[in-house]
Amino acid sequence: MKKTGLCLLVLSLAALSVNLAHGAGPYRNPDNRNPNDPLEGTYPVPYKLPVVAEITAQLDSVRGFIDRATPSRIVDRATGQPVTDFAAPSATAIVEPSPNDFGIMNYEMGVMHAGLMLGRRVTGDPKWTAMTERHLAFFHDRLPYFQAQEQEFKLGRANSFARWVKPHALDDAGSMCAALVRARLEKIGPDMAPVIATLSDWVANRQVRLKDGTLARNRPQAWSVWADDMYMSIPALAEMGRMTGERRYYDDAVKTVLGISKYIFDAQAGLYTHGWNQNNPDAPEFYWGRANGWAVLAMSDLLDVLPKSHPGYQKVLAQHRRALRGIAKQQSGEGMWHQMLDRHDSFLETSGTAMFVYALAHAINQGWISPTTYGSIAQAGWAGISARIKADGSIVDGVTATTFGADHVYYYNRPTSINAMAGYGPVLLAGFEMIRLLGNPDVVITDKVKTYHYGPKKP
Amino acid sequence: MKKTGLCLLVLSLAALSVNLAHGAGPYRNPDNRNPNDPLEGTYPVPYKLPVVAEITAQLDSVRGFIDRATPSRIVDRATGQPVTDFAAPSATAIVEPSPNDFGIMNYEMGVMHAGLMLGRRVTGDPKWTAMTERHLAFFHDRLPYFQAQEQEFKLGRANSFARWVKPHALDDAGSMCAALVRARLEKIGPDMAPVIATLSDWVANRQVRLKDGTLARNRPQAWSVWADDMYMSIPALAEMGRMTGERRYYDDAVKTVLGISKYIFDAQAGLYTHGWNQNNPDAPEFYWGRANGWAVLAMSDLLDVLPKSHPGYQKVLAQHRRALRGIAKQQSGEGMWHQMLDRHDSFLETSGTAMFVYALAHAINQGWISPTTYGSIAQAGWAGISARIKADGSIVDGVTATTFGADHVYYYNRPTSINAMAGYGPVLLAGFEMIRLLGNPDVVITDKVKTYHYGPKKP
Amino acid sequence: MKKTGLCLLVLSLAALSVNLAHGAGPYRNPDNRNPNDPLEGTYPVPYKLPVVAEITAQLDSVRGFIDRATPSRIVDRATGQPVTDFAAPSATAIVEPSPNDFGIMNYEMGVMHAGLMLGRRVTGDPKWTAMTERHLAFFHDRLPYFQAQEQEFKLGRANSFARWVKPHALDDAGSMCAALVRARLEKIGPDMAPVIATLSDWVANRQVRLKDGTLARNRPQAWSVWADDMYMSIPALAEMGRMTGERRYYDDAVKTVLGISKYIFDAQAGLYTHGWNQNNPDAPEFYWGRANGWAVLAMSDLLDVLPKSHPGYQKVLAQHRRALRGIAKQQSGEGMWHQMLDRHDSFLETSGTAMFVYALAHAINQGWISPTTYGSIAQAGWAGISARIKADGSIVDGVTATTFGADHVYYYNRPTSINAMAGYGPVLLAGFEMIRLLGNPDVVITDKVKTYHYGPKKP
Repeated sequence: MKKTGLCLLVLSLAALSVNLAHGAGPYRNPDNRNPNDPLEGTYPVPYKLPVVAEITAQLDSVRGFIDRATPSRIVDRATGQPVTDFAAPSATAIVEPSPNDFGIMNYEMGVMHAGLMLGRRVTGDPKWTAMTERHLAFFHDRLPYFQAQEQEFKLGRANSFARWVKPHALDDAGSMCAALVRARLEKIGPDMAPVIATLSDWVANRQVRLKDGTLARNRPQAWSVWADDMYMSIPALAEMGRMTGERRYYDDAVKTVLGISKYIFDAQAGLYTHGWNQNNPDAPEFYWGRANGWAVLAMSDLLDVLPKSHPGYQKVLAQHRRALRGIAKQQSGEGMWHQMLDRHDSFLETSGTAMFVYALAHAINQGWISPTTYGSIAQAGWAGISARIKADGSIVDGVTATTFGADHVYYYNRPTSINAMAGYGPVLLAGFEMIRLLGNPDVVITDKVKTYHYGPKKP
Repeated sequence: MKKTGLCLLVLSLAALSVNLAHGAGPYRNPDNRNPNDPLEGTYPVPYKLPVVAEITAQLDSVRGFIDRATPSRIVDRATGQPVTDFAAPSATAIVEPSPNDFGIMNYEMGVMHAGLMLGRRVTGDPKWTAMTERHLAFFHDRLPYFQAQEQEFKLGRANSFARWVKPHALDDAGSMCAALVRARLEKIGPDMAPVIATLSDWVANRQVRLKDGTLARNRPQAWSVWADDMYMSIPALAEMGRMTGERRYYDDAVKTVLGISKYIFDAQAGLYTHGWNQNNPDAPEFYWGRANGWAVLAMSDLLDVLPKSHPGYQKVLAQHRRALRGIAKQQSGEGMWHQMLDRHDSFLETSGTAMFVYALAHAINQGWISPTTYGSIAQAGWAGISARIKADGSIVDGVTATTFGADHVYYYNRPTSINAMAGYGPVLLAGFEMIRLLGNPDVVITDKVKTYHYGPKKP
Repeated sequence: MKKTGLCLLVLSLAALSVNLAHGAGPYRNPDNRNPNDPLEGTYPVPYKLPVVAEITAQLDSVRGFIDRATPSRIVDRATGQPVTDFAAPSATAIVEPSPNDFGIMNYEMGVMHAGLMLGRRVTGDPKWTAMTERHLAFFHDRLPYFQAQEQEFKLGRANSFARWVKPHALDDAGSMCAALVRARLEKIGPDMAPVIATLSDWVANRQVRLKDGTLARNRPQAWSVWADDMYMSIPALAEMGRMTGERRYYDDAVKTVLGISKYIFDAQAGLYTHGWNQNNPDAPEFYWGRANGWAVLAMSDLLDVLPKSHPGYQKVLAQHRRALRGIAKQQSGEGMWHQMLDRHDSFLETSGTAMFVYALAHAINQGWISPTTYGSIAQAGWAGISARIKADGSIVDGVTATTFGADHVYYYNRPTSINAMAGYGPVLLAGFEMIRLLGNPDVVITDKVKTYHYGPKKP
């Protein structure tokens, strides 16, 4: 009996074969008024013209989720009770643990702040940055306490504020530095100038570099260059340039784009390999989705503030366009991108997808790339993302922290989790930038023959 | 209970994983006399040397299906009753609707007539073109009626003969024009010279072109170049060259092959992208199967009639070979080609596959490409098609009408239907050309070590 | 009822879609002491640092399987009874049939002997070559008997020793010739010098060649060049060079590497296509896994003995590196490689995978390629293989004998079997070379952030 059942299952599978997904999707396009139109099937994602109110509601649920996931209180590690006496530091005082393991000083949080600040700019509603203000006030108020704790107890990385008390990697410094500068320039929260000084100093002057000046790592193996480090350095350098007006920051940001791209951008594929290692510069590529996401986010942030007159502007723009084109080519039939961009049997991953949707929509809105080509790709990507945001604002199918590995078994089998922080900020960015795109006065969107066409206002 | 069941299902799926299709196919090769041969497995399609009688029987069922699907009567739109008085036109007179939505003047019908005429040439049996004769007699008899209807009532596109009364796109003109010229030269049906004149004039002189003379469209976006338009123009121009002997038609056909290929043929992939748009000439590619099918059908038709002495002959032949090689590389493990040729997780699609099987078999039969390389690829493709022809002559897994889209979600999720007209003509062409190949005196087919080898008679 | 069930199944499948394999694997990595670590998922293969004792135990079970599968007795074909009178030959005397259809003189057996001899060298334990000794003693004792049988009865290929009595193809000669030379130089079994002379003469002087001297075949079609023939010739030539010291053998081996590579190595893909045919040098590629395995095994064997001072050494090394890089790029997310290397919807195949794991691990151990790049790729490959070795030493998912075909339906649907001989020798080679790698004093292996990093001792 059991055997027969299995046999039937196997036969059914064989018959379905590669056609598994075709036409069996749960979504029908509501923009098509004819529910029985034989020329329109069903979709695995909500393929339709995105609706601003729906995007806004989803982003608000995400905002709520990250707000709840990031307590800003000091508690005693042993008892869990709130610390109320801040006169003298206690060795067991820590920032209250997040129910979702969201570290409030982690680099992923810098992207969340970027998303919230974009939300405020796009909607004009200050509620979006309430969490940013809460975090910054907490940092501002309690940094002296943790500095004192460090002086007295030498806790090292066990100090909850370790990243800022004593940064030791780009991951500690760049992303949050950029967020703090943006907040300062937008007058959100208290003035964090001293922290900005510490973090920008790490990025600009203290991180290890290759002999040619390219930012590098010596872990997990010396020496390596990571795509992720584009985001961990370039936005901070760019924002420092904007804040200080000092050209050396812009020069270094441009140099970092071009330097890292030289090592890890594969011009043939139009994609970044996750990293480069001096012990084998000729290694096979690992086109990890999120690594490419960090790269395009970083270039996008730089182009936002780099003066057009800077001699590196056109080079960065050209590189950004090359990467966006290579990425766009790899979009799946479900709108999402895969964990490994060129491996269409690897899982569909949310954080990379959200970074791409933001970067594409933003580049259209800034006039860097054509709406004709990239508008519906961004829209289709948002369709995929929108189906990954749950009612409570949690986001599924985002991959957890991933190192620069050396085999595909590692990358293919990384777990996904609603606690994977890296996707939350990009989803906010993607959604708000889609709202901008839908209202972009220079772009015309038409819905014809069951699909969508974006184009310039004046063709 | 339910949860356990789901769990088991998931485990089974995980175990089967990418190996789903391997060895679980329903077909055993009957050419292997040993039913227990451990060196031969089972197949997802009927992998074997095709049998002429079986092909013929399947094509006859297809012929019956399209014959039944294409009534050639005039009825009243409101009552459905036949119109019998043709003295004065009625505003509500229409061509009787097809039970399968097969428009008898649609461009897809031009390919069906081509397939039926090939059937007559290959088999010598006039039954294959009985439907062509019936349609042409109807057109011939009733065109004046619908011309009068138009003059009196100005119905525009609601006039059943609108495409010929007042053509306004290549889709209206090229494919049926080619069919009408062929019928005329083969003395099938009444003389359609006036219609040929109208349609060929549209193609040669009236369709919009880019400044460099390349045939173009302004929908869904201006200006664009479509692969489909190769078939909607080149066969008509080629046949006009043959019929009139005027070289300008051949020149324009060659120019169209080279012009459109310049815009949309990707030499690296060896494939055509569906289209080109002036608003972003550098867009990522969409290698839609049927678009490539139209391209190779068009080049094949041109090479059939273009004098070898024409200065463009070798260029067209070289381009046709390049495209056939790129297409052949993408054949799936089930003989079929995918909806998106390079995306092997998109569904297996019949109309593109049939166009490729025809183009490959025909190119072997004409001596344009090597039987050694392409013979078994064509045969394997036919194996896939033969499993998609149902007993009633309907054809499954053919994709419905598809515009030049701008995202993969659109292309991956197009519905398939037995009413997708575009596959029927190509299946007729493919089957009859396979019959020619199986009887080709210059080709030797051997069945060795569980597979098939085609080769030249004199190696 | 049934319909509802199917409907539910289809829905479940659609929901799972391409994410089928992700995170549903049966294996948890035991190197991670935290069984609930949210940053580590489950794997489809035992992803972990391989354990020497476990590898050894698996290889011992494989050794037992092939030992039982290869009787070395003479029996009467009709009665099955042992032949005991060797004074005069009987027409019906044959080598006792293998329960697994393992021919003891087949080329696949040469690889098994290579694996067993490597086992003896790596472990110092002579038990590994007991089977080699048994076979060689049998060959030595009974060759005169079968030579006499041939003289008297002219059985041709029905003579059990036909391959050596009268070789007629590289498949008969090269692989076993190399094994016999190695055994002779390692003093394993009796001196097989006369057989070595016969077989090496076939390879060096009698096999058909193209005009430029490249070894060729005239089946299934004339003239063709096969990747497989690299292994069927180069190791024999290389070992003859080592045994005799005659440079002409080395020259011919190098010439064969470069000659065959010129015809069938695709530099763009970094892979070998299965073969080349003079009737269409421009054919689409078939990147069959095992064909690439034969190529890298052959180059590896040549580099093992070719003097570094030989003018071809660097050229062969460069070609070997190019092929290993191209192969490494294609490793699946399950550690295994696919039947068709670039077709990730074709099944995962064991024999090719084992050849690649051996070639990669060996090249690291010999200092030819970087451990940083290729160490974890080899390890991940072994994880895949280890899950394919059953408790009785049989190996699953190895593809049966496969000719140089001309369509993907053939290649995708080749059956796999525990009786597919070609995988057994490579699995032995791969396992023993992994043991060498794990103990390699110049390589440091670290286990960090849920993955493995191989590096040079002195970075």
